[in-house]
Order: sequence, then structure tokens, then C-alpha cells
Amino acid sequence: MTQERRSGGRRGKTDRVGASIPQLPWQQVVNNNAPMQLFDEDRMEALHRTSMRILSELGIRVLDEKVLGIFEKAGAIVDRSEGTVRIDESLVMAALKSAPHTFTLTSRNPAKQLEIGGGNVAFGLVAGPPNVHDRVNGRRQGNLEDYKNFIRLAHYFNAIHIIGNQVVAPVELPANSRHLDTYRANLTLSDLSFHCTAIGRGRAMDGINMMAIARGIPVEEMRASPGVITIISVNSPRLFDGAMAEGLIAMAEHGQPVTITPFTLMGAMTPVTLAAALSQQNAEALFGAVLTQLVNPGTPVMYGAFTSNVDMRSGAPAFGTPENAKANIIGGQLARRYGLPYRTSNANASNAVDLQAAYETEMATWGAMLGGANMIYHAAGWLEGGLTASYEKLILDVEILQNMIEFLRPVPFQEDDLGFEAIKGVPTGGHFFGSEHTMARYSTAFYQPMLSNWQNYGAWQEAGGKDALDRATLLWQQALHEYEEPQMDPAIREELDAYVARRREEIGSDEP
Amino acid sequence: MTQERRSGGRRGKTDRVGASIPQLPWQQVVNNNAPMQLFDEDRMEALHRTSMRILSELGIRVLDEKVLGIFEKAGAIVDRSEGTVRIDESLVMAALKSAPHTFTLTSRNPAKQLEIGGGNVAFGLVAGPPNVHDRVNGRRQGNLEDYKNFIRLAHYFNAIHIIGNQVVAPVELPANSRHLDTYRANLTLSDLSFHCTAIGRGRAMDGINMMAIARGIPVEEMRASPGVITIISVNSPRLFDGAMAEGLIAMAEHGQPVTITPFTLMGAMTPVTLAAALSQQNAEALFGAVLTQLVNPGTPVMYGAFTSNVDMRSGAPAFGTPENAKANIIGGQLARRYGLPYRTSNANASNAVDLQAAYETEMATWGAMLGGANMIYHAAGWLEGGLTASYEKLILDVEILQNMIEFLRPVPFQEDDLGFEAIKGVPTGGHFFGSEHTMARYSTAFYQPMLSNWQNYGAWQEAGGKDALDRATLLWQQALHEYEEPQMDPAIREELDAYVARRREEIGSDEP
Repeated sequence: MTQERRSGGRRGKTDRVGASIPQLPWQQVVNNNAPMQLFDEDRMEALHRTSMRILSELGIRVLDEKVLGIFEKAGAIVDRSEGTVRIDESLVMAALKSAPHTFTLTSRNPAKQLEIGGGNVAFGLVAGPPNVHDRVNGRRQGNLEDYKNFIRLAHYFNAIHIIGNQVVAPVELPANSRHLDTYRANLTLSDLSFHCTAIGRGRAMDGINMMAIARGIPVEEMRASPGVITIISVNSPRLFDGAMAEGLIAMAEHGQPVTITPFTLMGAMTPVTLAAALSQQNAEALFGAVLTQLVNPGTPVMYGAFTSNVDMRSGAPAFGTPENAKANIIGGQLARRYGLPYRTSNANASNAVDLQAAYETEMATWGAMLGGANMIYHAAGWLEGGLTASYEKLILDVEILQNMIEFLRPVPFQEDDLGFEAIKGVPTGGHFFGSEHTMARYSTAFYQPMLSNWQNYGAWQEAGGKDALDRATLLWQQALHEYEEPQMDPAIREELDAYVARRREEIGSDEP
Repeated sequence: MTQERRSGGRRGKTDRVGASIPQLPWQQVVNNNAPMQLFDEDRMEALHRTSMRILSELGIRVLDEKVLGIFEKAGAIVDRSEGTVRIDESLVMAALKSAPHTFTLTSRNPAKQLEIGGGNVAFGLVAGPPNVHDRVNGRRQGNLEDYKNFIRLAHYFNAIHIIGNQVVAPVELPANSRHLDTYRANLTLSDLSFHCTAIGRGRAMDGINMMAIARGIPVEEMRASPGVITIISVNSPRLFDGAMAEGLIAMAEHGQPVTITPFTLMGAMTPVTLAAALSQQNAEALFGAVLTQLVNPGTPVMYGAFTSNVDMRSGAPAFGTPENAKANIIGGQLARRYGLPYRTSNANASNAVDLQAAYETEMATWGAMLGGANMIYHAAGWLEGGLTASYEKLILDVEILQNMIEFLRPVPFQEDDLGFEAIKGVPTGGHFFGSEHTMARYSTAFYQPMLSNWQNYGAWQEAGGKDALDRATLLWQQALHEYEEPQMDPAIREELDAYVARRREEIGSDEP
């Protein structure tokens, strides 16, 4: 019901006038602008060559026997004493041939199907913070109730397309089975696709199975129609974790999309130079991408980038920096070179929802858009360099994302849009407020923001002089108040609950 | 002295450790990135054709007899009963042939010479607000002391390249001679080029004469080496003011650069469609550009753009919107089509230095950069849609501009920057903090911000938990405290003072 109302018209008019927050309808966002080329072909070739040297001469260390075996079988040089895998360019390029350029992600609501790759763009909810913050209740540890609220907000705001890995960790729940609770919340409180935790095979399989149940299809059908994603982080430099490798294999075996994201903060996990960081990122991302294809050729795999810098005085991570924006752009050039969809982020390093949070997020968002990103992860709610999920930051981010969506919207350009007759009809020094040309278009001509306030100073003061942060605090509360849980077939809900109960018992105190 | 210290090294190290605000050195900013092409050649041609129809069929109304005469002599169709000038494409294109693609602006400090046009970018101080605000002293009417402080800040911060028209109006001074006081402040408290008020011939001539005195050269030498600029606003739709026309003529006669900026808020002064607004902006800007060439062929003239939208519910102006960003980009496509340097702005419509001020300013700044802007006017200090000059906003803006300057800096790409040996030297899962490759570069590898704080949450809280706005409030005070007046030859200062005294007497209670 809510959903129907909200996507009914471009401006999301509702029947409760004044009650609803203005927002854009759910949409597949398309970026038709040519990506920026910060590096020319020679430089791209030099990055590629350096990456190939890293892979063939230095290799990647993998803490998983199964993965070593897979690479060995494919012709890689596996050194079991070091645990390293060395692969050459021909193996890389041959494996990547089977990776699709685009893929479709289908949640339990077919109307929210996402095309990933090409010019398409999807925005993801923040993932991973141990803490949560809002200005009403303060800063606190992650917990299931806040987790649920963020899922409600992700469902409410159409600019959020996908749920990332645990928006906040519900730390009051047992670590080995809390993924069941968060998956269940994702599936019942929203109708979006989500990220399966790939720490071990069990967590990945639970996500796949539960999405299949929610969609009312057998797991086998998910192979041809993926419904969940995961991200495999690389412990840069050049180290693949064992549990994550197991998760990768499970996802790939079932045809679910995998993103490989090296954790490459310049000066810490890579050299300080952008050229070196990108060469290393590229080697590590391609290594994981090759693995997905060796496990199951045709598995959708995204090229993940998370290259930013650190504060060289303290070693603290920095995001939304000029260096981060450049990395976001060149990362896209690299992903396209290998024909892979491109995931990056628009993070910031601020401790408060303040000017810094805004300008760093904007800087990174523009870098991502100019880089032709297909998925922008952590796009709503990220604060404190990822250590806190923030309600107010989520509101700020949705406004930033909506502005970007509108920026990407093609400009109407019919004869009448050129407006010669309209201009002719208004005297010199006059105005166009009441002209027919204006009246026919005024309600849809411009983006109507939810957070910005354009009152004049006097009117703004009279209305309380609330700044954008004050307004954000009101907006997330209003959104939670207006939120309506999407309908779910009671039989499916029962099946989900039964699955969760059974798995909780199976897991017990073991790892899933 | 201060200047020498500050531009000594890339990081602007000073001899007073810890005392100085980290900032980039004074530099000619160059944007080597290809501008974004939002419109293809067909659309650009359609805009051009519509502009030509506006100029030849509808015409521009000019409230100045001298200008009507100039156009008449050039072959335009002048209707004296309406006061309109109609010009055809051949006249436009013939006149623009003499307009230079680039020009050089020389202030009294030759080290701060600015190349305008091509890939060069210059950032200007906010211009025009009647009010001023900071968080220590609150909101107040413009006055000379605040005016002077803003000039001091413009001199202090190297990211500000040029002083715009009256950063705040010193309303306690007589309106007909206060330009003498503001020009004097510009010339004594800073060593930057500045904007001459072109409301009437007298104010323009005073700016030209005073810059010549400050440079120690005869006014005649300024013809070949311009030192001041002006902006001629068009009273859109299609109306040229008389006093401004007089100012334009004075500037053009003396070879000083003129910017023509139509005031084109979509839905108010133009139709609501971007295509129409840009067609009208283009017609009006070209009309003024043609006039400069008819007055004095070869006069440097900039294509000015100020196209944004209004809030259609209230009519209030909006800036930093998606529509404004697109207009900034396509405006650049238009300027380059006619071979003219491009001026635009990065304004916002917020009433407070808040999240909105930050994201709107970023949106507009990226639009300007992607549009290949050569001069970004109002780039530091603009608040309340231009009705207030804000100290904290200036700090925010300098940080935004410095981030952009660093984004534009070319990426080092020598063999060693690719870092293969450095990567080889660090074990898998290790770190690069202490590696030789890092140590050789750590102090210059990344941009060091002045406003951003990258401490972890605990350290940040312990240090007082100041958000970016709190820090901005400290920073402008620190900058004013550290500011040192640039040296000026006492004889020149005397000559300037004598000029001001003489002109003040001449003007009396008349218009200058």
C-alpha cells in the first residue's frame, strides 16, 4: 500500500497531504554520463602490468586449503610452505572471460529488481558498524531494535536500493547465530535484496536459503536469478582469509553475486602512492574475481574498490578525501577494463554529522559517480569512519543520493522545452511565474528536496530557525512513524520462522 | 614576509610550529580534466539557434542611449520607441572574433598574476551581501570593519584568488563614495586583484585608477596588462541597465576584463525548463559580450552564468541544486563554443552554516569544475542565498576549494610510484607505515586538511568533541590573529590616500 502510493507519481504524492516526506519514487538509477578518464591508456596499461607482476611474481597468500587446491588445479603455482598462489596473466584473462558484464538481482518484490552493471547505479545501506547514534538517544552499542529501525528506514526511503552487511551488529545476540535474526529482519521489514555475511559457508547458505523462502522459490532457481550478494574483503596486502574464502565458494557455487573488495588504505595497507595502491587493489580484486570463475564460471562478480588514504600523522583512516575521489574514478576505469561491474563507497571520517561529514561524503559520492560506479556501498548512514551507524547521517545521505539521482536524470529537450514562445510572451524585465509554459510544468520541473530549506531568513527564523541537522532529527523520526511493514504471505513467514528456529538449534554453540 | 613563508613549501610550513593553519600555497589552479559534455552537438546547436532567434527576433532592451547608438552604428536594428536592440548571428559571430580566449590579470603582487581561460581556475570571495554573520558576534548589517576582515581573510587564505564586488556593503558610509573605501581596503589589506563596481562610469574608473596607482604604473599601461575586473549583470529577461552599461563601456575602453552574467533563475526570470533558461542566458551573455567588442575590440570578456532554479512553492531562489549543477556544466559547454573564458558560481541557499550549506556548495562546485569554469565567483563566504557574508562559511569554503585544488593535482606516475618493490618489501597482511617508500613521501603524499578532523572517536571526545562548525569558528579567529598586512611602498600608499581624498571631494553628494 505505502509502496504503491509512494511510487505512484514522480513526486510521490500521498493521500495524507503534508504528512509524508517528499521523496523520489523507487527507480533503477541510470548514469548516462561518460565516466571520467583520469588516467590515459598508457597509465592504465602500466597499472595492469604492475598488477600482473604482483600476481605472478609475489602472489597472494590464502589461508584455505580448498582454495589452494582450486588454483593448483587451474594451473597456478601454489607454494604450500608459504601458502601463496601465483597466477599469470593468461590464467587471469581466461578466467575473467566467463564473468558477466551485468546481472540482475531479484528480491522478494519483483518490482524492485535491480540491474547491476553497465550504466546502472544502486545505493546500499551502511554495513558493519558496532555502534549506533542518534541525537535523541545518544551513542550506544549495536542492538537488534536499532538494526530493525535501520531496515525500516531502508525500506521507507526509495533512494536506498540494497541492504548491506549488518547495518549495526546486534551484540546482545549470540555471535554465531545473529545472522539469522538480521536476515529475518531484512526479509520481513523490507522487500530489498541484502548482503549475506560470508564469514564461513553456513552464514552464506542461510542467506541464500532464506531469500529463496521469502521469494517462494526453490534454492535451485536462485542460481539463474540471484537474490542476495556478498562482499569478500581482502586483508591487504595480499592476504585471503580462510572463512571468507569458504563463504565465497558457497556463494559462487549457488550463482549468487560476489564482490571482491581489497581493504587498501594508502600508507597503511598499500604504499602511499595512488599508482601503487591501485595496482595492488587491482591485483587483489582480480585474484578474487578469478577464484569465483574457477569455482563456478559465470558467477556474477563485482570489482570492489575501497582505496582511500590515512592521516600520516596518526595512521587514522581518512575518507572523502581528494585522493579517495581520484581512486574512486580510476577504480572504475580498472573495473571497466576487465568488463566487471564496479562497486565502491562514499564514506567519510567525521565523528559527528557535521560539515565535514557532508563535504567528505559529497566528495566521495562525486568520485563514485564520475567513476561510473554500479553499486555505492555504505551510501546511507555511515559515520565515524564506519564505526557508527547514524540516523541523522542516513537522512543527510538520502538527500545527497536523491540530489545525485536528479542530477543524472536526462534533461527534457523537446522543441517546447527550448521555450522561445514562452520567452516571447514575457516582457523585458518581467517574470515567468504565471506564464502558461511555467504553469504546465512547475510541479515537476525541479527536484523537491526533503532536507533543504529554502525559506528566506525571516520566515526561517520565525519557523524556529532549525538547521539541517535539527530537521534531519525530525525526519528520521517521522519516517519511522510513517513506515508500514511490507506485506508477506503468512505461509512464507511461517516457513522463514521455522528455518530460523531449526538452524538456531543446529548451530547451537558451534560456528554456523 | 608572511607570503614568502607560506608559499615556501608545498605544505606551507612556517617557523612557528603549530601556530599556523595548514594550507596550500598560492598557486595558479589548473583543471586538466576534460569538461563534462551533458549536451551533445545537436542540442548545443539547438540552444545556439534559439539564442540567435531571441537576439534577432525579440531583441534586448537597453536603458542607455550611448549603447543604442553603438549597436546602431554596428548594423543592429534599434527600435527607439521600445528601446530594443535586435542583432543577427553574423553580427554576433563577427564581434566575438576579437574576444581573447585567455587573458592575464595582474594585481600589485606580480607573483599572484592569474591566467584566466583555458584550463585555469580562479576562486573569488563572496560579493554583494548586505549582512554579515559569525557565531561569536551574531548577524549584523554590513560595515567597513567586517569588510576589512573579509579582505584580510581573502589575503590570508591562498585558495582565494580574487576579491569580488563588495564582500559586504559598508552601510555606515555614504553610498556614492563607499567604493573608494572598499577599493582602498582591497589594495592595502591584500595584494589581490579585485572587482570594480560598474554601476556608472565613475566607480569603474576609480577602481582602474587606484589599481594603477597601487601597481605604480600609468593607467595607460593597464590596457595591455589588466588589473581589475567587473561583472555586468543582466536584468533578465532581456533588460540591460543604464548605469551598468556605462560601467561596461568605461571598463572596455580601458581594456579591463568584463564578465556578462545574466541573472537567470529558472521559473522566475526564465522559463522553468533548463533548455529555455540556457538559451536565454546564452542570448543575454552574448549580447553583452558583443557590446564589449563593439566598444573596444579585444577587450577581455568572460561568459557569465548564474542559472539556477527557484522553489516553485514560494518563489525563493535555490542554489546548489541538481538543476544548478547541470546548468553550470552546460554553461561551460556554451562558453567554450564561443571561445570565451567561463565564469560561474558555487552558491547555496541555506540560512545557516549547516549540512545544507555544505552539500549545496559541493554540488555547485562540482558542477562548476565539471563545466570547466575559469572563475568561480562567490566561492568563499556566501550564505543565505547571498544575503549574508559568513565567517564560518568562508572557512568551510576554503576547505572545499582546497579539496578541489588537490583533486585537480595530477597524480605522480613515475616507475617508482607504481611501487612494485615497495609491495614486494612488505609481507602479506603486513603494513607500509615504516617502509622506505612511505617514509620518503609521507609528508607530501596526501592533502592535509585544515577543517577536517580524523581523530578516532575517543580521542576526539577527549579533545572536546568539537564539530566542524566549532572548529571553523576557531579557525577564522586564528587566521585574523595570524594575518599580516602585505607591505606597500609608503609613497604609493600616500598617492592612494590622496586619490581617495580628492575623489571623495569631487563626488560630494553626487553620483561618482
